[in-house]
Amino acid sequence: MNQSAVLKPAASETGDPFLLTPGPLTTSRTVKASMAHDWGSRDASFVAINKAVLARLAEIVHGEGDYVTVPMQGSGTFAVEAMLTSFVPPTGKVLMLINGAYGQRAKRILDIARRKTVAHETAEDAPPELKKVEAILKRTPSITHIFVVHCETTSGILNPIAEIGALAAKYKKGYLIDSMSAFGALPIDAPAIHADAVAASSNKCIEGVPGLGFVVCRRDALAATKGNATTLVLDLYDQWANFEKTGQYRFTPPTHVIVAFHQALQEFDAEGGVGGRGGRYRNNCRVLVDGMKALGFELLLKADLQAPIIVTFRMPAHPRFVFERFYDGLKTRGYVIYPGKLTIAESFRIGCIGRLYEKEMHGLIAAVRDVLDEMGLTSLTAATTE
Amino acid sequence: MNQSAVLKPAASETGDPFLLTPGPLTTSRTVKASMAHDWGSRDASFVAINKAVLARLAEIVHGEGDYVTVPMQGSGTFAVEAMLTSFVPPTGKVLMLINGAYGQRAKRILDIARRKTVAHETAEDAPPELKKVEAILKRTPSITHIFVVHCETTSGILNPIAEIGALAAKYKKGYLIDSMSAFGALPIDAPAIHADAVAASSNKCIEGVPGLGFVVCRRDALAATKGNATTLVLDLYDQWANFEKTGQYRFTPPTHVIVAFHQALQEFDAEGGVGGRGGRYRNNCRVLVDGMKALGFELLLKADLQAPIIVTFRMPAHPRFVFERFYDGLKTRGYVIYPGKLTIAESFRIGCIGRLYEKEMHGLIAAVRDVLDEMGLTSLTAATTE
Ligand SMILES: Cc1ncc(COP(=O)(O)O)c(C=O)c1O
Ligand SMILES: Cc1ncc(COP(=O)(O)O)c(C=O)c1O
Repeated sequence: MNQSAVLKPAASETGDPFLLTPGPLTTSRTVKASMAHDWGSRDASFVAINKAVLARLAEIVHGEGDYVTVPMQGSGTFAVEAMLTSFVPPTGKVLMLINGAYGQRAKRILDIARRKTVAHETAEDAPPELKKVEAILKRTPSITHIFVVHCETTSGILNPIAEIGALAAKYKKGYLIDSMSAFGALPIDAPAIHADAVAASSNKCIEGVPGLGFVVCRRDALAATKGNATTLVLDLYDQWANFEKTGQYRFTPPTHVIVAFHQALQEFDAEGGVGGRGGRYRNNCRVLVDGMKALGFELLLKADLQAPIIVTFRMPAHPRFVFERFYDGLKTRGYVIYPGKLTIAESFRIGCIGRLYEKEMHGLIAAVRDVLDEMGLTSLTAATTE
Repeated sequence: MNQSAVLKPAASETGDPFLLTPGPLTTSRTVKASMAHDWGSRDASFVAINKAVLARLAEIVHGEGDYVTVPMQGSGTFAVEAMLTSFVPPTGKVLMLINGAYGQRAKRILDIARRKTVAHETAEDAPPELKKVEAILKRTPSITHIFVVHCETTSGILNPIAEIGALAAKYKKGYLIDSMSAFGALPIDAPAIHADAVAASSNKCIEGVPGLGFVVCRRDALAATKGNATTLVLDLYDQWANFEKTGQYRFTPPTHVIVAFHQALQEFDAEGGVGGRGGRYRNNCRVLVDGMKALGFELLLKADLQAPIIVTFRMPAHPRFVFERFYDGLKTRGYVIYPGKLTIAESFRIGCIGRLYEKEMHGLIAAVRDVLDEMGLTSLTAATTE
């Protein structure tokens, strides 16, 4: 009898596999249950829910008063493109700090939109070199903005957003941050780091369902973006002006996704906000890293560069380790992991975010041990004499 | 005791008010219930669901084989902007047939994207004048595309998409249709009417939840759009090419919305597809129109121009008729109607689409009668001698 035929897979409260990925993520039963109703988009209670969501998002980055949240339907990339093409005028030039696929994607967005860029690219396991960044700023006065990815989910590396913000302030540049995978789990003090705009989405560390991005914008900086956008739907200024006037979305909003996001924010607050949420993820990350290391896996990143969001593991070199079998074996056991996206090394990734607790991380480690066993692997070190 | 304090409002299966609007609409309990799970976006079952959705959408417009569906996250306007800016090259020129706010919005999209347009505008209660359209096509060979809104939801008017398609074919122009509020309820034979692309969304006549647009595209025409788009996220060609290669979305898809859309399509098929769905809406529309006329309300449109989607009523001139009281009175009774959007006359709108049956339309008419009573109105004709 096949072993997996009798296996009872681990499952979430709603019977689903656990998603240990950069998204879509596992969400709580109650977040999903909140979508069981229909809402009119002009209904006073929906309008109030939406307002509460936008206000709370700004507060999370200490933006009360000076910052406003502009929602952008679609996935996180829609919010990033809206931020870049609304804030950077056609005459602008952006210093792009790139160390992974999401930084590359942001550059591609600006290339397509015909905005000029200057790239400072480092390896996927290395943060931007601040001395070089400063030198570029010094010698290129035509730069108008700096862009960086907070946690570059390609590797899981944490980039130094405060230090970069200090340079943005010193050289009087606009400062745009893609904090997609970090927002809500890692602290961001937007005014203190001189951020003009921070983009993120409903389905990362706030643990809503996917379908809504948003950009928390410094009001002054946003007000100056009028006329920059080269699209209607991605124009943050236009959406903001409309909200100020009518309190409404310009187009039919994804009501169910927004109501679920509101529920997710309440659960986020109940967990203690950034401190509580980040603490749970750090603990998840510790259990994951310790467990995987004990089984012989190697991490890509040095410990001080690793954000507690997603962890990249080097692909084991052992000839009996076959990634497809590993992936499928974990999936059968109720754990969905993620392929790598690195260019510098063969790898795979395991996320620490979403509705996952220590228990699930221990369950995952047990499943990994099990699957290695099934592949006939007790040690991951390839023995040439085997 | 206040009458409305003892009123038990009408409610949908999930206890919500009925949404008699152009969207968001009332959806079935089972459509919403399908969102109670989390799905990995690379999961084979999610990939299969998504594929089934896209294939079925093309079939609905008789596009099997020659047409492909490209999804576009966001509301319907995202799909319209994606269609216009992907199909119309920067050197193109579009003949815009405009008789309402959605046609105006499409023109605004092209203006912002710096695509040239020629507008043929008629009143909100009048279809395009085909002779004039042909004359414009004859004298303006630089026109590359024709754009029209199928059912212009501003008034509820049905535009003659087949006749316009015949002109597009005769003059060898690309043909782009916004069928947002008609797709699934009114028959469209995309090959027969020579359509290059038809845009619609999840939350109109297919009765899914809002959050996903889509464009059904003639494969040949789509293939020729490479390099036209001036954005990353709204580039239909890029998304299509990615699907062909990987079967995946380029960015995190709104998994819950897509699974709900799949469920909605199954319920659409169970009702008999376009024939069944359109039949129910026609019946809803008949009950609505007859009931409202009997109460003294006047329709904006002549009967042969009225699509069975949404009906525009002229604002009664009677001094005791106060729209806010009328709206709130209906809302209290469980029926949400919609303000007007006309420029030519004061008006309001009542939709016939979404999970509404004859029973709800009769319930609405009874509620209207009730509210008129409450306002002390037995006749809507303003008596000057009162
Ligand atoms: C840092 C970062 N930026 C952008 C994105 C793109 O988000 P989406 O896939 O929702 O478009 C992601 C997704 O994981 C991300 O991690
Ligand atoms: C004909 C038409 N086009 C476009 C739209 C815009 O759709 P959305 O509000 O989903 O952006 C609508 C919405 O009612 C519509 O009826």
